[in-house]
Amino acid sequence: MSEFALIARHFSRHQSDIALGVGDDCAVFDVLTGHQLVTCIDTLIINRHFPENTPPHAIGYKSVAVNLSDLAAMGATAHSITLALSLPVADDAWVASFAQGIYDCCDEYQVKLIGGDTTCSPTLTISVNAFGFVPKNQAIRRSGANIGDLICVSGEIGSAAYALQHPSSSLIKTLNYPKPQLSLGQALRGFASSMIDISDGLAQDLGHILKASQVSADVYLEQIPLATPLQKLPSQNAYHYALTGGDDYQLLFSISLENYQKFQASYPEFQLYPIGNITRSQDQHKVICYDEGKLYQSDTRGFNHF
Amino acid sequence: MSEFALIARHFSRHQSDIALGVGDDCAVFDVLTGHQLVTCIDTLIINRHFPENTPPHAIGYKSVAVNLSDLAAMGATAHSITLALSLPVADDAWVASFAQGIYDCCDEYQVKLIGGDTTCSPTLTISVNAFGFVPKNQAIRRSGANIGDLICVSGEIGSAAYALQHPSSSLIKTLNYPKPQLSLGQALRGFASSMIDISDGLAQDLGHILKASQVSADVYLEQIPLATPLQKLPSQNAYHYALTGGDDYQLLFSISLENYQKFQASYPEFQLYPIGNITRSQDQHKVICYDEGKLYQSDTRGFNHF
Repeated sequence: MSEFALIARHFSRHQSDIALGVGDDCAVFDVLTGHQLVTCIDTLIINRHFPENTPPHAIGYKSVAVNLSDLAAMGATAHSITLALSLPVADDAWVASFAQGIYDCCDEYQVKLIGGDTTCSPTLTISVNAFGFVPKNQAIRRSGANIGDLICVSGEIGSAAYALQHPSSSLIKTLNYPKPQLSLGQALRGFASSMIDISDGLAQDLGHILKASQVSADVYLEQIPLATPLQKLPSQNAYHYALTGGDDYQLLFSISLENYQKFQASYPEFQLYPIGNITRSQDQHKVICYDEGKLYQSDTRGFNHF
Repeated sequence: MSEFALIARHFSRHQSDIALGVGDDCAVFDVLTGHQLVTCIDTLIINRHFPENTPPHAIGYKSVAVNLSDLAAMGATAHSITLALSLPVADDAWVASFAQGIYDCCDEYQVKLIGGDTTCSPTLTISVNAFGFVPKNQAIRRSGANIGDLICVSGEIGSAAYALQHPSSSLIKTLNYPKPQLSLGQALRGFASSMIDISDGLAQDLGHILKASQVSADVYLEQIPLATPLQKLPSQNAYHYALTGGDDYQLLFSISLENYQKFQASYPEFQLYPIGNITRSQDQHKVICYDEGKLYQSDTRGFNHF
């Protein structure tokens, strides 16, 4: 099947409220008045970002979800995506299921696929560029954390890393179908002082906030929310998954105690999980962990792509 | 070297007029008042879109240029890019030269690199997503060609395909360093009735305009501008390069005779090359070629990605 037939068959769903979508040289759309464009690009590669036996539907879904999670981490509203798909063979059934995964995630978050490029490559590679809007100058950056702020996460940590090691676990859905926290991210505008999504591991991603904000952090391990299978592990093992495991796509943010209380009063529908505090920077923006009040030594390195 | 060190070393050039660039979850920027966002994504893969021995500087330059060419084909002004780079090894010298190629093309067209993702992959793969602006509802689409319009190109065709077969030719620069026709594309707003850039071959890309516009075309082969090395070939060979060779990144557009004359009077700095006419659709949006008035039969299939 030709490239054009393949694209036409699976990726030409009509996107009525986009000025110009799939099928021209570029997509064209309006940015909401009073807003800025927010954009990011993320790549998933077979055997690196997902195991070879991952269902194509999950690969499609996750390719979109991880990018929407980056928008969530800015407090943005998601609008649309472009897709660069490189695959070894033009297998119709595979592409059909993959495309359905793309569209299912798009539909769940009211996002449109507006353009793309399909190419042949020995290595299955998916890059998605996501687009969103944020009210002018209200994007939540990594660099705003203040000494004394609480550090919070939006949900259970370590589940995806556990599932990667235990593919028959019920937690496999957290690995294959991550849920970008867009509603929470938007609600946190004006409340959170800094934010990131956890893609490379809690310790490493917290490290990015600390470096950008020139601060350090104390983390109280027993406060980290864990899924049931992790709660049953020896704590050392569970904390290892939580601190170094990637792919959770929960939000990690700093927030003053005052804003934390205001937020809870304003948005009772969102549960926040405080796991530590921002502290004065010493010793190179370090994450210092405590287990029930005792200093905890561990390898907290996250995922390194090389 | 870690992913972060690699990125920090080569891709963190400060982009002062972007609200937020490389180094956060997303980039954030303002869209020009009264304009729409124009965006596209294109992938280059080793041994498929460029030979293995292509200098890394050229690979970087071309990765940006082919996307700016898509913006040019809409009549857009280029603003910025994101970069998804997947490479087998974190070779410092290679990345330095590749990054310089990216920045050199960006600088030439006043474009900023605002974000990206670097990953490890067995197959060198580069996806660039480009961003531009177009005054509201003035994007030049593929679908506006009218019967009787002239068909024009912006420069010599077939040079890149010739260079791919003859790498020691002086035309190699047209293959490695394509020049996106942004200024011409913008000038053609309000004049051209449809437009595309030639990436997969004149015949195939003209076919996209014909299909979108529901028309056919007559092309007069002897009018196609050819570089000197192609002029010296038997005409059958030269026309084969011109009709089916990709990678030229010249603009291909339809324009009424009246607008053609007005444009020439308004913009004497741009040379346009009429090569045919838009005709009534018969026989499935076909490109019919003539050589000195005689019907020309040839294989006009362009590059098919599978």
